[in-house]
Amino acid sequence: MQSKTLRFDGDVTVISSASVVGEKEHTGPIGDVFDLFDATDKFGKKTWEKSEGEMQRLALNIALSKGKMSERDIDAIFAGDLLNQCSASAYGLLDYDVPYFGLYGACSTAAESMMLSAMAVSAGFFSRCAAVTSSHNCSSERQFRTPLEYGAQRSPTAQWTVTGSGAFIIGHGGSVRIAEALPGIVIDKGVNDASNMGAAMAPAAAHTIKRYFEQGEVALDDVDLIVTGDLGYEGSSILCELLLTEGYDIKNKHNDCGMIIFSRGAQDMHSGGSGCGCSAVVMASYILPKIARGELNNVLFIGTGAMMSPSSIQQGLSIPSVGHLLRLCPSTKNKGE
Amino acid sequence: MQSKTLRFDGDVTVISSASVVGEKEHTGPIGDVFDLFDATDKFGKKTWEKSEGEMQRLALNIALSKGKMSERDIDAIFAGDLLNQCSASAYGLLDYDVPYFGLYGACSTAAESMMLSAMAVSAGFFSRCAAVTSSHNCSSERQFRTPLEYGAQRSPTAQWTVTGSGAFIIGHGGSVRIAEALPGIVIDKGVNDASNMGAAMAPAAAHTIKRYFEQGEVALDDVDLIVTGDLGYEGSSILCELLLTEGYDIKNKHNDCGMIIFSRGAQDMHSGGSGCGCSAVVMASYILPKIARGELNNVLFIGTGAMMSPSSIQQGLSIPSVGHLLRLCPSTKNKGE
Repeated sequence: MQSKTLRFDGDVTVISSASVVGEKEHTGPIGDVFDLFDATDKFGKKTWEKSEGEMQRLALNIALSKGKMSERDIDAIFAGDLLNQCSASAYGLLDYDVPYFGLYGACSTAAESMMLSAMAVSAGFFSRCAAVTSSHNCSSERQFRTPLEYGAQRSPTAQWTVTGSGAFIIGHGGSVRIAEALPGIVIDKGVNDASNMGAAMAPAAAHTIKRYFEQGEVALDDVDLIVTGDLGYEGSSILCELLLTEGYDIKNKHNDCGMIIFSRGAQDMHSGGSGCGCSAVVMASYILPKIARGELNNVLFIGTGAMMSPSSIQQGLSIPSVGHLLRLCPSTKNKGE
Repeated sequence: MQSKTLRFDGDVTVISSASVVGEKEHTGPIGDVFDLFDATDKFGKKTWEKSEGEMQRLALNIALSKGKMSERDIDAIFAGDLLNQCSASAYGLLDYDVPYFGLYGACSTAAESMMLSAMAVSAGFFSRCAAVTSSHNCSSERQFRTPLEYGAQRSPTAQWTVTGSGAFIIGHGGSVRIAEALPGIVIDKGVNDASNMGAAMAPAAAHTIKRYFEQGEVALDDVDLIVTGDLGYEGSSILCELLLTEGYDIKNKHNDCGMIIFSRGAQDMHSGGSGCGCSAVVMASYILPKIARGELNNVLFIGTGAMMSPSSIQQGLSIPSVGHLLRLCPSTKNKGE
């Protein structure tokens, strides 16, 4: 029962999506695709927390504008971020007079928000929903690790929290279809190194992907791309190995939002990008446009989240993780049907 | 568009519910109704955070057992708590091999989790969902205010975070029907006193209740009880006054989970109870049984959440709040139909 993939009818789609990023993301290999950047990472605000909230406000604004909509055209917002009490979302989206569902799925929140939006639209509860998520390197560093001013050295397996926010308007008539969703089960394989979250999250991604393929409706051969968000280099290599032992050789079809967003050679980001904002901006402005253009026809997006807190790590606990899967493909709209 | 109440068909119900509480809740005026308590508030664990997670595990276990179900009978868990990164839920529910949606709605999370469960069941995505939330006074005090050992004095308007966890199994065939849901809009009326969260949340509750009645399908006269969770004494009196100025005199029909759970005279709880666990346990073990027995026939439950964080308060921001509304009534099952 618990492994059931949710199937949506043909017209549950992403109508528009938008991304707002910081300087490092803008100067990365796909920097040109993002809708807006601020070289100061501040977005006109005096605290990093407010800067993060402002990115959410801007991302949603641009997504609405791209879809030729106003806030009155959306029925609900599903939003979340990494800050304590998800305050970037609550404060950043205050301007919008729209029903609000707060989520926490760590870095899986982008996938979780899209999944719940698709469910609500598919069921007819809402005509259009917004899924909005963010992370900010500077607010995350001081909350999860040490204040920036300490200049702490990072371990080679550490990922770099992306400064970015992605927004998706989900409803009918868009060019990217959300065909299926498989919500993740929280698992814990005993990894307790908060500087190696890719290793903690890889088993959750593998678990969900395996459950998905075991249902047999869609096979690995049918899929163009399996994109995780965000395992980084370390976690991605573990994911591929874990799935190989299960009989799924995904290596040639796999990529990771945390590997896509930064240049391994030219930027000193260690194991790649991470954070709620990483998969949100890469999906919003890089992967979804490829699907809309028909360059990708069948994409599995697995949002992965490490569900620990700084307290739980200090108390010696290992890191529970979750992986939420969405299958995305071009809608019939852009097949000219 | 944004004000639309979601209506569920007749068979979206609470199949079973359960509550686990600490000593102060057990010795309160409705202490006898709760399913389980631990006089040490520790539930056999060494940290308050683990104690809180254990309460969630126990609450879900008892709810399943009351409904004669096992974890294999539920398709998804919607869960959340007040801890940073919602870690009580992620760790506490790890034992359950069930898809997991993490939520953050501050004290509104119990209502939010029931709402999303009802939506998913109504749409047929899941046959049965679990909605699980918790708070623990000791983990909350040290996270949001000061460590217990400081013995900090509390202000008269402060509420006491309840030690408790409530679980609801939502599906078909139960005796309490979830008839309608109206998700809340986040609003901020400029209250920035974190020791008076009732005042911050009352406008959000008033906003949702007003939007609900303005739709005209259900009038104030039709309702037996409007129960908020958790405004406490201060916030409740503000709510009644706010709605009176809008033409709705709810005073004789209103109660609040934070006022129900503790005795104002015999227990020194200042403005009443609060926390994700407060409305969860009062609804699970006190209000829902009254509905199931037909003592209450039409109840509006408004879960209210104050969406600030300790950082946002330190940075001088005011407190955004949300109120999610559910209408609950006896199901046709217990009318003998």
